[in-house]
Amino acid sequence: MISKKNKILIVGLGLIGGSYAKGLTKNGYEVGAISLSIDDIDYAIKNNIIKHGHTEVKKEYISQFDIIIFALYPKTFVEWIEKYHHFIKKDAIISDVTGIKSPIIYKIQDILKDDVEFIAAHPMAGKEVSGVINSDEKIFINANYIITPTLKNTKRGINVAKNIAEILSFKNISILTPEKHDEMIAFLSQLTHCIALSLMTCKQSHHLKDYTGDSFRDLTRIANINENMWSELFIMNKDVLLEQMELFEKEFSKLKKAIANEDVTTLKNMMIESSKRRSYFNK
Amino acid sequence: MISKKNKILIVGLGLIGGSYAKGLTKNGYEVGAISLSIDDIDYAIKNNIIKHGHTEVKKEYISQFDIIIFALYPKTFVEWIEKYHHFIKKDAIISDVTGIKSPIIYKIQDILKDDVEFIAAHPMAGKEVSGVINSDEKIFINANYIITPTLKNTKRGINVAKNIAEILSFKNISILTPEKHDEMIAFLSQLTHCIALSLMTCKQSHHLKDYTGDSFRDLTRIANINENMWSELFIMNKDVLLEQMELFEKEFSKLKKAIANEDVTTLKNMMIESSKRRSYFNK
Repeated sequence: MISKKNKILIVGLGLIGGSYAKGLTKNGYEVGAISLSIDDIDYAIKNNIIKHGHTEVKKEYISQFDIIIFALYPKTFVEWIEKYHHFIKKDAIISDVTGIKSPIIYKIQDILKDDVEFIAAHPMAGKEVSGVINSDEKIFINANYIITPTLKNTKRGINVAKNIAEILSFKNISILTPEKHDEMIAFLSQLTHCIALSLMTCKQSHHLKDYTGDSFRDLTRIANINENMWSELFIMNKDVLLEQMELFEKEFSKLKKAIANEDVTTLKNMMIESSKRRSYFNK
Repeated sequence: MISKKNKILIVGLGLIGGSYAKGLTKNGYEVGAISLSIDDIDYAIKNNIIKHGHTEVKKEYISQFDIIIFALYPKTFVEWIEKYHHFIKKDAIISDVTGIKSPIIYKIQDILKDDVEFIAAHPMAGKEVSGVINSDEKIFINANYIITPTLKNTKRGINVAKNIAEILSFKNISILTPEKHDEMIAFLSQLTHCIALSLMTCKQSHHLKDYTGDSFRDLTRIANINENMWSELFIMNKDVLLEQMELFEKEFSKLKKAIANEDVTTLKNMMIESSKRRSYFNK
């Protein structure tokens, strides 16, 4: 359990890092931050998102914290750990918000000394805007949260991750293996982004917006996509993502065949099944 | 222009027919309805959605109306016109809300006598619920509305269709040929439904909902789909829809190849283009 005496450090003050900081501060925890941008640190202090922060990574500062949450792109996260892991206090728990797990968890756990535990977690929440100025702790309310322990994790570590989720008002906390997480996320999040962006770029027309209903808007909301983060996520999870893309392609092609053959029975059966399954997803 | 003295008949009291009736009644027009269900007629009278209505199609009733709006499935609409068109008053204007245009407009205009004008229109609005009890005239506020005249239409007919859209608070009224409409709708509405339902049915997993973020929910909102209406719409617009499906498949497969080859440049370019295009669609 996290106590109010524990100091929490957020590394990376983007939308998710900022929203974590805001939520933890509002709940009475002392939150510090590391960010490359002094403007973001200043903004976050001024707006009661964090208590203090630095742009430089120094041992005196890092070693104060009992809990560190990394909100960086996956590769930058691994590089940070390689470079600075010896700054981290003995018995500290570190966690993250990274959208991909197996390609980073084992690497990081191997680098860390035995007295620091990394428990990985993934908050299934976001917004189509970025940066600390758009921080909003309310995006976590009723959202899903996935913890992905390995054999190296302890009950204490898992409980800290659960506790972070509880403090931030996540609704549903699941425990998955890193591999199962990556498959689920490839399907639920990466595949959906692949679909949205292909739909957005496949047809050139300047007037589409004058003819559209809400369905096209819904399917392309996430087509506004951060190319640096998502290209990294797609490639790191390449094998699993390609499998999910092929699963979708196969089903889409089955539907296409049914339309081409005017096979009303298959069409209706797919639609009935689709409606039934969708009903489980109503919030 | 529609005058308050004009009586308006809605044929088909589903979600869209009911919402038209409600909006027109609220704006002070006398609205009647034809529906197969006496319960729907009773409900609509009781709730001030219509002034009067019948389940049987009789000449004495139909011939009272200056404007008739059909909110039926496409095939039922054509059958209705074949059977009852001679009940319609001289100089009446008829319009519709059908989601497909070229396969029905020319047929209907051929059946009608010269003294009745059919001006086709398509309100780009809806809801994932059905029936007159879910009627809601607010779904049209700021939505798009497409009018699809042919060479047989007159300025008077087009103005009546425009006027209906204005009374119901649609934001953007476009004029397209029936063929261009069918292509746009195949892309913006039918393709999006094909994608949503394939995504919903392609992977069997009972726990998906515990891991999902908003993106999967957004992309599958319309996966709750009326199989009778949509199988009819897909098949009637088959050729154009198949073209749009192939356009999407080609782009999706280009993205897949870029991921497989770890071709970061192509990936980022697609994402940048996608984000740029999506920005035009913000309401």
